[in-house]
Amino acid sequence: MQITNKKAEKVKIAYIGGGSRGWARGLMSDLAAESRMCGKVYLYDIDYSAAKDNEKIGNMYKELPDCASKWDYIAVKTREEALKDADFVVISILPGTFDQMETDVHVPEEYGIYQSVGDSVGPGGAVRALRTIPMYVEIANDIKKYCPDAWVINYTNPMTVCTRTLYEVFPEIKAFGCCHEVFATQEFIANVYNSINGTAIDRYDISVNIFGVNHFTWVDAAHYNNIDLMPMMKKYAEENKDGKAFTTLNWMNKNFATNQTVKLDLYRRYGILAAAGDRHLAEFCPGAWYLKDPDTVAKYNFALTSVKWRKEDLKERLRKARAIISGEEPLKIEKTGEEGVNQMVALTGIAPYVTNVNIPNIGQIENLPKGAVVETNAYFSGDSVRPVCAGRIPDDVNHLVIRHVYNQERIVKSGVKGDYEGVFRAFINDPNVVIGLDKARELFDKMLEKTKDYLPFYEKYKAEEKSFI
Amino acid sequence: MQITNKKAEKVKIAYIGGGSRGWARGLMSDLAAESRMCGKVYLYDIDYSAAKDNEKIGNMYKELPDCASKWDYIAVKTREEALKDADFVVISILPGTFDQMETDVHVPEEYGIYQSVGDSVGPGGAVRALRTIPMYVEIANDIKKYCPDAWVINYTNPMTVCTRTLYEVFPEIKAFGCCHEVFATQEFIANVYNSINGTAIDRYDISVNIFGVNHFTWVDAAHYNNIDLMPMMKKYAEENKDGKAFTTLNWMNKNFATNQTVKLDLYRRYGILAAAGDRHLAEFCPGAWYLKDPDTVAKYNFALTSVKWRKEDLKERLRKARAIISGEEPLKIEKTGEEGVNQMVALTGIAPYVTNVNIPNIGQIENLPKGAVVETNAYFSGDSVRPVCAGRIPDDVNHLVIRHVYNQERIVKSGVKGDYEGVFRAFINDPNVVIGLDKARELFDKMLEKTKDYLPFYEKYKAEEKSFI
Amino acid sequence: MQITNKKAEKVKIAYIGGGSRGWARGLMSDLAAESRMCGKVYLYDIDYSAAKDNEKIGNMYKELPDCASKWDYIAVKTREEALKDADFVVISILPGTFDQMETDVHVPEEYGIYQSVGDSVGPGGAVRALRTIPMYVEIANDIKKYCPDAWVINYTNPMTVCTRTLYEVFPEIKAFGCCHEVFATQEFIANVYNSINGTAIDRYDISVNIFGVNHFTWVDAAHYNNIDLMPMMKKYAEENKDGKAFTTLNWMNKNFATNQTVKLDLYRRYGILAAAGDRHLAEFCPGAWYLKDPDTVAKYNFALTSVKWRKEDLKERLRKARAIISGEEPLKIEKTGEEGVNQMVALTGIAPYVTNVNIPNIGQIENLPKGAVVETNAYFSGDSVRPVCAGRIPDDVNHLVIRHVYNQERIVKSGVKGDYEGVFRAFINDPNVVIGLDKARELFDKMLEKTKDYLPFYEKYKAEEKSFI
Amino acid sequence: MQITNKKAEKVKIAYIGGGSRGWARGLMSDLAAESRMCGKVYLYDIDYSAAKDNEKIGNMYKELPDCASKWDYIAVKTREEALKDADFVVISILPGTFDQMETDVHVPEEYGIYQSVGDSVGPGGAVRALRTIPMYVEIANDIKKYCPDAWVINYTNPMTVCTRTLYEVFPEIKAFGCCHEVFATQEFIANVYNSINGTAIDRYDISVNIFGVNHFTWVDAAHYNNIDLMPMMKKYAEENKDGKAFTTLNWMNKNFATNQTVKLDLYRRYGILAAAGDRHLAEFCPGAWYLKDPDTVAKYNFALTSVKWRKEDLKERLRKARAIISGEEPLKIEKTGEEGVNQMVALTGIAPYVTNVNIPNIGQIENLPKGAVVETNAYFSGDSVRPVCAGRIPDDVNHLVIRHVYNQERIVKSGVKGDYEGVFRAFINDPNVVIGLDKARELFDKMLEKTKDYLPFYEKYKAEEKSFI
Repeated sequence: MQITNKKAEKVKIAYIGGGSRGWARGLMSDLAAESRMCGKVYLYDIDYSAAKDNEKIGNMYKELPDCASKWDYIAVKTREEALKDADFVVISILPGTFDQMETDVHVPEEYGIYQSVGDSVGPGGAVRALRTIPMYVEIANDIKKYCPDAWVINYTNPMTVCTRTLYEVFPEIKAFGCCHEVFATQEFIANVYNSINGTAIDRYDISVNIFGVNHFTWVDAAHYNNIDLMPMMKKYAEENKDGKAFTTLNWMNKNFATNQTVKLDLYRRYGILAAAGDRHLAEFCPGAWYLKDPDTVAKYNFALTSVKWRKEDLKERLRKARAIISGEEPLKIEKTGEEGVNQMVALTGIAPYVTNVNIPNIGQIENLPKGAVVETNAYFSGDSVRPVCAGRIPDDVNHLVIRHVYNQERIVKSGVKGDYEGVFRAFINDPNVVIGLDKARELFDKMLEKTKDYLPFYEKYKAEEKSFI
Repeated sequence: MQITNKKAEKVKIAYIGGGSRGWARGLMSDLAAESRMCGKVYLYDIDYSAAKDNEKIGNMYKELPDCASKWDYIAVKTREEALKDADFVVISILPGTFDQMETDVHVPEEYGIYQSVGDSVGPGGAVRALRTIPMYVEIANDIKKYCPDAWVINYTNPMTVCTRTLYEVFPEIKAFGCCHEVFATQEFIANVYNSINGTAIDRYDISVNIFGVNHFTWVDAAHYNNIDLMPMMKKYAEENKDGKAFTTLNWMNKNFATNQTVKLDLYRRYGILAAAGDRHLAEFCPGAWYLKDPDTVAKYNFALTSVKWRKEDLKERLRKARAIISGEEPLKIEKTGEEGVNQMVALTGIAPYVTNVNIPNIGQIENLPKGAVVETNAYFSGDSVRPVCAGRIPDDVNHLVIRHVYNQERIVKSGVKGDYEGVFRAFINDPNVVIGLDKARELFDKMLEKTKDYLPFYEKYKAEEKSFI
Repeated sequence: MQITNKKAEKVKIAYIGGGSRGWARGLMSDLAAESRMCGKVYLYDIDYSAAKDNEKIGNMYKELPDCASKWDYIAVKTREEALKDADFVVISILPGTFDQMETDVHVPEEYGIYQSVGDSVGPGGAVRALRTIPMYVEIANDIKKYCPDAWVINYTNPMTVCTRTLYEVFPEIKAFGCCHEVFATQEFIANVYNSINGTAIDRYDISVNIFGVNHFTWVDAAHYNNIDLMPMMKKYAEENKDGKAFTTLNWMNKNFATNQTVKLDLYRRYGILAAAGDRHLAEFCPGAWYLKDPDTVAKYNFALTSVKWRKEDLKERLRKARAIISGEEPLKIEKTGEEGVNQMVALTGIAPYVTNVNIPNIGQIENLPKGAVVETNAYFSGDSVRPVCAGRIPDDVNHLVIRHVYNQERIVKSGVKGDYEGVFRAFINDPNVVIGLDKARELFDKMLEKTKDYLPFYEKYKAEEKSFI
Repeated sequence: MQITNKKAEKVKIAYIGGGSRGWARGLMSDLAAESRMCGKVYLYDIDYSAAKDNEKIGNMYKELPDCASKWDYIAVKTREEALKDADFVVISILPGTFDQMETDVHVPEEYGIYQSVGDSVGPGGAVRALRTIPMYVEIANDIKKYCPDAWVINYTNPMTVCTRTLYEVFPEIKAFGCCHEVFATQEFIANVYNSINGTAIDRYDISVNIFGVNHFTWVDAAHYNNIDLMPMMKKYAEENKDGKAFTTLNWMNKNFATNQTVKLDLYRRYGILAAAGDRHLAEFCPGAWYLKDPDTVAKYNFALTSVKWRKEDLKERLRKARAIISGEEPLKIEKTGEEGVNQMVALTGIAPYVTNVNIPNIGQIENLPKGAVVETNAYFSGDSVRPVCAGRIPDDVNHLVIRHVYNQERIVKSGVKGDYEGVFRAFINDPNVVIGLDKARELFDKMLEKTKDYLPFYEKYKAEEKSFI
């Protein structure tokens, strides 16, 4: 990379999961729109042909009249080629296929455990973590070998576990996890403000202080200019059971409406605002609260996302990719609202700024353990990301949050060593696993069996004699 | 108090709850057997006639030929008379009557929540705490006023909440909570050892390192002489599903057999030994583990103690008291195995020693919050109780324990202020409350209604408009 | 205050010490140059005529053709008038007169203790603190009463003690201390870079991570764009004994050259860069290192600033003020390079940014005590200042720093209570007080005697019987 | 080792430094007097003939009529023979000879730095540490290899550094450091009590709470029975400049009177009682306080122990040994008052008890760093030493103490790696090194040169180019 006159050139980005039909496309569009940075993107994917498709699409951006920066896209067959001397590494992979995700989400339903997403915590999150961790161990080792000074941006879920695994394997890594859920909450606040004041401010006008873990972050201070917006949100929560009128469509997931009913219930109960979509929030709370059964879910106005839908959606995305490549459908540069490209620009030192991010706790949250990956704002500047001190999470909220921190730390530490029995201890400590020990074991074993092709230590686990029930 | 030649004389003990038919009788017997200390015991009880009965019985000990120390017993009508310039204060009260305890234990069963004791945590523990806290606030204030330098021994449950409330109200208080559950665990270890080695050692021969909170303490090191007994216990746990053969009858609660099945299951799972009876342990774990329903309880070989039994037992104890007073039954000096009297002797400086105790954490447990009341060993010497450093609780165990620490801290802080809504947040965070938010609210309100005569802030709570479900 | 279209209007600033001939003039000029903010500045000073002079000068700015924002200046006779409903409070006072400062700086010389500034630590800093603390107690109480929501910017030394006192008296205050020493270090780094690379970057191009306490801050990371500049500085330090060629004139103190000799010596010794001028740094180190005697000072290329010079300088500034008022000399708008006005703009929410600041430690520095006032970067945004996590100070550096943290905490806590004996314990723990206990007592007493008019507890101190030597 | 009926037999003790004429003789006498333990003592010394002499004397004890336990003494030529499967290891060595100690103590005097002992901190302590650390690295490695489960008792100074080095090299080691200074303080308190009350209590009747680092420990609570003795000591300190009347002769060092003048001065100043002899205390305080020059030392009634005296004393001890072996002088069993043998008995589990000890901080002192070796009481029981929580050291005292903790940690960490430049940073941070940086370097280099035969990294240090002055 070379920086001259506030422009970074010859930037090398390695994209792990470069065949992705969602995040990769968004990044391509954002890069094409960003004039302060230019270079090459190396696309690596275990499905090489998918990477090749993205190479084609990526290079098509250069022809668009409003392209601000002409990036070269190169699909490669090895991780080494992608990573070698990269300036930035983007990781956005699907651990396994949607068949495995089907197991994660729907097998627990046989035991009365409902999950609205199934990719972060709960039975689904734990088993997805078990598939993901060995992949991240390999990636971390390769980054250490081929580009130890690169900045690494993780988009894969379970976000906390993935990011934390990178640090567990290579503690000096410069990595962070990036998620858009907080942006939607800023937008919700802006929309409430607009409805009251007849204004048209947007999410960028709302500054927030946030703390927690990914998908279970909380806002205890929000401002528009110097106006404290928390009293407004408190009043709103007290007077409204839901926020349907201000329903925000999630970035990159435009089919998942969130009606804020869970968020507002939590606000009334705990006095601060949870900052992820309701589908995520519900999974971090005790199972009986919002996910007891489909009726409870309906009562709280959110939905259980079926994997069937995801499979259909993927087909549509594949069709669309082919249509773009063949020229049947036009390619457009549209800003996604994601912050990834802004973060890269900030890291070149050209335009420092503050946004939210997932990194190890060095004190930014006073009452969560040091070293655990947490989400707060951070200051991005030349070659550095430094968290902004977010203070103490209010006790009662923290008691909900810290339980997941403990579980996630256990999953990472045991997962990296292949100690699935340790992971089971986190599994039965999850607030959504409200079944007996024998049933929990049966469920865990069934889920592992179905996903065993991705579990390097599966045989060892089966061979261990288990003396407990 | 006056100490001469290793004997403490003119000791004044104030007994709050001095009409007690259980603990008071035990203490009288232990005092009669202890030659190094003598003086007066002031018995205060809201039921003055009960205290008067104990006065009679207490003074009868002086006539026994094997009485080592002739204590005077005086029933008094005010707390002030009892406390004024006391050297020691013993608190052992029943917060409310067995009718209230019936509510604590059995109303939750209507919601599918089973409790084996119902006096420490869970719905019963929380509501019992709400009754107890205002009484302890008064007692603490009176101690501050009438005998600020006295040593205060608490026997009442919920042990942690009661002891912690004393410190919340009067931070300079010299108080500790005293419980026999660990002794039974030492006895269990001794019995296992004896069965293997053909020896006859007893609980005093077993030294243990303990940490946790009352009724959910754990042993990570046990020795007989310098022999590490943990490998023996590990082997035992792996080879035995229960410890029926070594079943120990609890001190002072001789009807509650504990078969160690829960304890051994936890050992296999977590690698260290829980140190309370199974009935207590079960209540601190997620509800679905050991208390899902009566069948599960049966499977794990423990019992749900019904309050009906307690009522019958009380009748028998009353009958026995009358029989002793009338001379129909003989009075005997029998050592109870409790440590209260030994602790008092140690505090005079005559015979320092180490035993387990509940006091605020000043570092004795590294990974529990400072200030919370925890249980470890402590060194008792002249006018001081200093905890022995017990180290770090293993992570997975600590995650089970700390959740109760958070809840208990919340209950004390909210309970003292009369903020029952705050207590409800602890209530729904209890691992045994695995019901929906609306059902939990219904249960909480029903329990409060039934115990409202003991709740000074009940009307305030009812009057608050609650905007959540 | 009212914010419309990214402009804050009707801003009320209270200036305590509004008769100041240095800082007040700089602020006026910076305000006149700032188009995003406008309003009124209330000048309060114990010397009302000095405030009145500044009122005249302040209002003259409105007539200048390049005035971007026409502020009204009003001299007031009471602190209440100035503070009532203020949006911002600026505090910049001289505690006592230069006669007292003469005592602070020069009496210790009679005991062989040399000070290069005498306003932060050392005997001078301690005694100056004793004068300042009662003034800050009053100011903090008035802010609590008249404008509890105002943002308070402190410029007075001892910076740490003054800012910390505000929080000691009114813990909810929104105050921070502001100092330019770090800027000069950024400029030094930029100058070294320019000399090597033939560029012309300036201090704003250099981003730094800083930690420590005011006047004893340290830089462990510096970047231009994404280039790590620490290797360059290391090489420079190894090859150069001083930095005379890049000597920077301090903001607002253009007569105090700093040749960086101390800074480079510390760099070679500790491996990171101290970030204040050498005159300040020397005073925080053990006295024998750089301040043993005038020869040692000369060897390290810095100077002992005599108070005589300050008195002369003040005369010149008074003359200049009169000349401006009379029209003999022209008034000019010149940016000072100070950050105060930018910070205010950021706090309105219009233009968030990151700069260094002195506020209580909530975790921004891992290895300094919580609650102590420390200096790091912070993120200024709408109505909030949140520190950026600066990490751990390297151990050996921290051992030098933390000693002052302890002393400053002691001085504040004892100073607020009027416990001068406690202050004496900090006095004899200062690294520059390398004299015997009896001599130290003699010096302390002599200094207090000379400044007693400013010491509300002086008589109490004299009356105490002191049983030690 | 084998324990039957409260008696430990076949105990193997390895004595490293087994040719010692002081500590070894005391241990032999204490072992002969202790009926609960018996076995063999292996004496290893680099001076084999000295060990052989002790073997002879040791075996002579068996013939004495009052010998309670007949131990076999065996001098061995390798550390391996001594350590192999030992139950206990005692380390009491002289690092170098008295010639080196002469350098430690007297060379600094050429620079105006006076030391009263020179073996713990200050220039002498640092350089002695540099000699000792490599020896302790070897010993720790051998213990790890030959007897990892043995309990290791260290008597060598610098106590803290030696003990800490063992843990740095072999973190699982079961080691503690043992010192008698606190006992003398208990005796002083007992003597004051006796003089007032006409009693005859002794040090065993005084229980104390202690905290700090070895030779700079402090007592904040002392009791006889349950009587708080601190008010008595406060009054004594206020009314008396010295404690000559109660002067206590140190155990094993019967020539070093301590008149308590420093101790009482510190008491008046800081409000709690320092618990080591004045000669030690003085060295931990800023140099100008008590060690400015010989006149100051005289004023405070203590003495600079010259190494010349130590050499004379050694001659006398050698003579005495020969006289005993030849039968000219009788051998007697006299209890030394040291606790080593009692500690061993406690570790067998036969007789648990509490005494003071030096071990890594796991929370026993709240405000000293975790991991540093600190001195507090500890509970000795079967195969375990667990510190008793001593609480927080009062702030002003802690600021004096923690400085040494930092320096000692630096010395161990740098010393183990052979980074003498790091040790120099501790050297110039010592409160008694009140000389300029160039003089300090000159002194450090001169001291190292004179002791270089014991410094494995000396050549490396000399070869490093040092760019600072």
